[in-house]
Amino acid sequence: MLKRSVVLVAHGSRREASNEEVYRLAQQLAALAGPMFAAVHCGFLEIASPSIPEALFNCIANGSREIIVLPYFLSQGRHVAEDIPAQIALVTAQHPDIKISIAPYLGSSPLIGTVLLSLLVG
Amino acid sequence: MLKRSVVLVAHGSRREASNEEVYRLAQQLAALAGPMFAAVHCGFLEIASPSIPEALFNCIANGSREIIVLPYFLSQGRHVAEDIPAQIALVTAQHPDIKISIAPYLGSSPLIGTVLLSLLVG
Repeated sequence: MLKRSVVLVAHGSRREASNEEVYRLAQQLAALAGPMFAAVHCGFLEIASPSIPEALFNCIANGSREIIVLPYFLSQGRHVAEDIPAQIALVTAQHPDIKISIAPYLGSSPLIGTVLLSLLVG
Repeated sequence: MLKRSVVLVAHGSRREASNEEVYRLAQQLAALAGPMFAAVHCGFLEIASPSIPEALFNCIANGSREIIVLPYFLSQGRHVAEDIPAQIALVTAQHPDIKISIAPYLGSSPLIGTVLLSLLVG
């Protein structure tokens, strides 16, 4: 089986605690996914590091042949529709043999309503 | 029992489709919650309307005596920590008899990891 990794992509914040929330979430996701993925990394579109290309290059350096980019965004705006694919394209140009796909963004999940309800009754 | 409503608060976007996603989510949440709440409204911090105070005043005009504000935000930044409470305070000053509370923001839910995993395997 090809070695597969995930890059959880967030916007990136000047507030370090917000970036740390993303790191913790990546760890949580790795724990939940178990052996499905070789690793779950973080990548940030702006402000914070590593950047999306850096995160992807790291996955490739660690032997991943397939990478799923998972956008931690609430809406299908320009960042999700254009900016993230453009940054992925920079990496694909140098590594055409690596399969990089983009999962649906967080806000598109049909489970979000249930999560919101749990916050109201919790 | 006091009449209770929910105001789902999002940032607000210049992209109308993003605001419409929030409206759809409020409808989904209302359907999931069933009779728990008299209504689920939307309110936007910036750019889009109704504003948070407008949404709260609407709930009160419709008879709600208790309102839960639910922040549709990924991180505990300035918007969640300061701006939303400040806008609620404008309403509380005029309606001290109405109980307005703030639920945990979306990104704080322990279910987010599971939602992300579902996007990877879906």
